[in-house]
Amino acid sequence: MVILGIDPGFQVTGYGIVKKEGSKSYLIDCGYLKMSSTKTLSCRIGIFYDFFSKKIVDTQVTHIALETPFLGKNAQNFLKLGYLRGILYLLAEQHKLPLNEFSPTQVKSSLTGFGQASKEQVARVILRLFPQLQAPDKADVTDAIAVTLCGLWKSSTGISLHNAK
Amino acid sequence: MVILGIDPGFQVTGYGIVKKEGSKSYLIDCGYLKMSSTKTLSCRIGIFYDFFSKKIVDTQVTHIALETPFLGKNAQNFLKLGYLRGILYLLAEQHKLPLNEFSPTQVKSSLTGFGQASKEQVARVILRLFPQLQAPDKADVTDAIAVTLCGLWKSSTGISLHNAK
Repeated sequence: MVILGIDPGFQVTGYGIVKKEGSKSYLIDCGYLKMSSTKTLSCRIGIFYDFFSKKIVDTQVTHIALETPFLGKNAQNFLKLGYLRGILYLLAEQHKLPLNEFSPTQVKSSLTGFGQASKEQVARVILRLFPQLQAPDKADVTDAIAVTLCGLWKSSTGISLHNAK
Repeated sequence: MVILGIDPGFQVTGYGIVKKEGSKSYLIDCGYLKMSSTKTLSCRIGIFYDFFSKKIVDTQVTHIALETPFLGKNAQNFLKLGYLRGILYLLAEQHKLPLNEFSPTQVKSSLTGFGQASKEQVARVILRLFPQLQAPDKADVTDAIAVTLCGLWKSSTGISLHNAK
């Protein structure tokens, strides 16, 4: 089981890839994709598609996990976030991968035991689980890893990530 | 110049394809794609991508035209509309086609001369311009043809579609 969790955004998209082998889980990749706002919308969507298409193949992803967004102040930004999410649904279909969505509360609750946890609390849990991980300079990365872990826990039974190496 | 205009929706997506040759323009294809709500979101997005990917190649589309949506009562439906629009942006990038968006007011105004025209008024103009077209049983189709024509007029100079055959 290889889970790709993504926190999409037109400026910065964070991602984490966790592989489960037996009772152990490994963070095999994480990082972020930055897209210049000087590029056209079409161009950025093309880059996004190509980037995750390659990640899925290279790391043999078996599941995709996404956080369900809520409408913020800017409806057009919310719509555009939908563009990137649509691309992930297309990739899920093209590679025949299940895609699961989780609410922010589900993600926070599964990481910290508390659905109203702050981003910092979530980040601290991530860094405790993966001590080899340097404090990422982007909160997008810890957010994405949180979604990945939520996807892992919800998809598997009784796996403790405290055993992760 | 071959313009593909699309009115996307998860249940019914209308489309129209108009080809311009010299001073004349022809409606070379129009219709709608219906997707069963019993299919998963990923599956429908895959069908949508494949359908328009084939249309673009088969009819040698050179431009894509879309209407800009406004947030309705249901934010999650608005987000999902973004999924389909994201796929169209991806197709534009993959086939190197310019994609232009028009507001509902621009579309109605370019068709009827009146930005607040009703759907029925727009449909009447479409049927007058293309008398060979049977009254489509879906308003989605006339809406899509309206976007296509708006795209044609805004992209070309001084072409009168009243010459259309």
